[in-house]
Amino acid sequence: MTAEEDAQQRPTLVGIGGDSGSGKTTLTGALYGLLGEERITSICLDDYHALDRRERALVKLTPLNPRANNFAEMEEHIWRLKRGLAVEKPVYDHRDGTLGPPETVVPREIVMVQGLHPYLIPGVRHAFDLKVWLDPDPGLRLAWKLQRDTSKRGYRDDQVRAEIEARRADAEAYIAPQRKHADLLVRFQSPSPGSQDMAHLSVRIVQRHTMPRLNFHDQLHTASAIHLDLGVIDEDGQRADVIVIDGQITPREAELVERSTWEHMDGVHGQAHHVPPERLGSYEAARQRQHSDPLALTQLILGHRILSARKSYLVRITEDGHRDLDPDHAHM
Amino acid sequence: MTAEEDAQQRPTLVGIGGDSGSGKTTLTGALYGLLGEERITSICLDDYHALDRRERALVKLTPLNPRANNFAEMEEHIWRLKRGLAVEKPVYDHRDGTLGPPETVVPREIVMVQGLHPYLIPGVRHAFDLKVWLDPDPGLRLAWKLQRDTSKRGYRDDQVRAEIEARRADAEAYIAPQRKHADLLVRFQSPSPGSQDMAHLSVRIVQRHTMPRLNFHDQLHTASAIHLDLGVIDEDGQRADVIVIDGQITPREAELVERSTWEHMDGVHGQAHHVPPERLGSYEAARQRQHSDPLALTQLILGHRILSARKSYLVRITEDGHRDLDPDHAHM
Repeated sequence: MTAEEDAQQRPTLVGIGGDSGSGKTTLTGALYGLLGEERITSICLDDYHALDRRERALVKLTPLNPRANNFAEMEEHIWRLKRGLAVEKPVYDHRDGTLGPPETVVPREIVMVQGLHPYLIPGVRHAFDLKVWLDPDPGLRLAWKLQRDTSKRGYRDDQVRAEIEARRADAEAYIAPQRKHADLLVRFQSPSPGSQDMAHLSVRIVQRHTMPRLNFHDQLHTASAIHLDLGVIDEDGQRADVIVIDGQITPREAELVERSTWEHMDGVHGQAHHVPPERLGSYEAARQRQHSDPLALTQLILGHRILSARKSYLVRITEDGHRDLDPDHAHM
Repeated sequence: MTAEEDAQQRPTLVGIGGDSGSGKTTLTGALYGLLGEERITSICLDDYHALDRRERALVKLTPLNPRANNFAEMEEHIWRLKRGLAVEKPVYDHRDGTLGPPETVVPREIVMVQGLHPYLIPGVRHAFDLKVWLDPDPGLRLAWKLQRDTSKRGYRDDQVRAEIEARRADAEAYIAPQRKHADLLVRFQSPSPGSQDMAHLSVRIVQRHTMPRLNFHDQLHTASAIHLDLGVIDEDGQRADVIVIDGQITPREAELVERSTWEHMDGVHGQAHHVPPERLGSYEAARQRQHSDPLALTQLILGHRILSARKSYLVRITEDGHRDLDPDHAHM
């Protein structure tokens, strides 16, 4: 096996972090079609809860508290996956809050790791080749969480609200501080306070300079509803390029930008599948599939970033060997 | 502040790992006198239990299980201490198994970290400048644990034995595998199976080549009761120098070796306090202070290694700056 072939066997790890209800599943759903389902393995860090729902109630801990999570096993599994090895992952069932029998997870080319604490401890944080953080405005997150938890997790509306209150202190202590470690922030914003018109949400994408430049900003600039701020200092004091996509972008303008971003991505990577544009930007509301152009564009940009992270990673491990596959030597 | 003065402010971290009852406290007790109490801060990782004794019983977890420990907070605190910063450390009370109010810990020059899981996760493991592991033979450990837990922790003899059985699977899964990460192994051995003649225990000290050479083996070689095996492959497949001190060493021979090791240590470091030899090698049995020459020699060698780790660390951070004080950059 050549170094290059060997490198191809090594998965690229993408972290998708954010509080409960921040849209992790919605944002990443379209990536299967975009990058190819057969290339992606996805895991959720909720499976590393150390305590099930009943046990957390007994000892009065929220799932956001590090004490309720098994970081030792999480860290071990993440590094096994990064080396291309299968793991026997525990399984947390959100429907009834129990931990079921473990399942075998075999890493494919891209491993997407969603969760509440992907960047809390350095030993896990350093495994990621791309670190994404979702940070929607609080009103939106409440609406999203209410919708999901009442329809899919068996909670009542007042229970969801009470739970958010009960978790607030832990969210501030353990979830919010992780944002500063991300490479890419995504913030969906209501067009006006209290509005829940999901089809016309704006989105603010912060691309920190911890990532390579991709030179696709010219493609975005063709739309008047897209605003770019390059080389600014962001909310965490880091140098970044910011893209704001206005929720009022017209379908025609969105389509043009999608097409040119798509062509740019295809030119750079030549690997993306040709998902029909209507497959991107899809979300569930009132038990119906709906479409959002800003969401579609965000998914395209995220796909572009993932392929780019994959590419840099392959170059790096082909050239430098596998030092960074060992947690004992990875954290340069 | 010069780089050198700044470096002096940075503590050296020494890990002292091993299962419950492996002699961590006995081995390290003499180091306060040997190196100077005012230079040492000592913490115990049991304080990072995520669950107290009552909660562990409710959810049926042993303290050895990573799920019962807060590795996120442990990792954060260890790196704060390494940077010379104080922490508000939780406090676990072994007498009644409760978690009390936190206490402020200010790191001194040398921070000794005793515990069950110092090397389980890379994010904690990498903070240590010297990693020691205690691995007494199982019969001895049982005797030590019985003695301590019945006299100081309010357990009955049969409870201690039942507890060891209940913990066996977790000990094999989570404690024993850490040994391979240590720089220095210490194994006390009974002179004959079942014997509990602590005063005449032998000790096997494995010095792995992950540590610098210290050239004090000539001092040890003067005693016929001390056997050296240099450059062997040890039980974990690692290159090491092994020192075996026979429990039958005579007080006269022990004294000569202690003196010459002491002089060597003083010549190399010039920093050790002059603890009267009778202060080393002391242990408690049947509520009395007793003396062991092999223990005294082990403590001297450990003290030598700690000062040497401190010295290499100061040289390294004075020359290279403080990259390795940041968990994000330390793990080269």
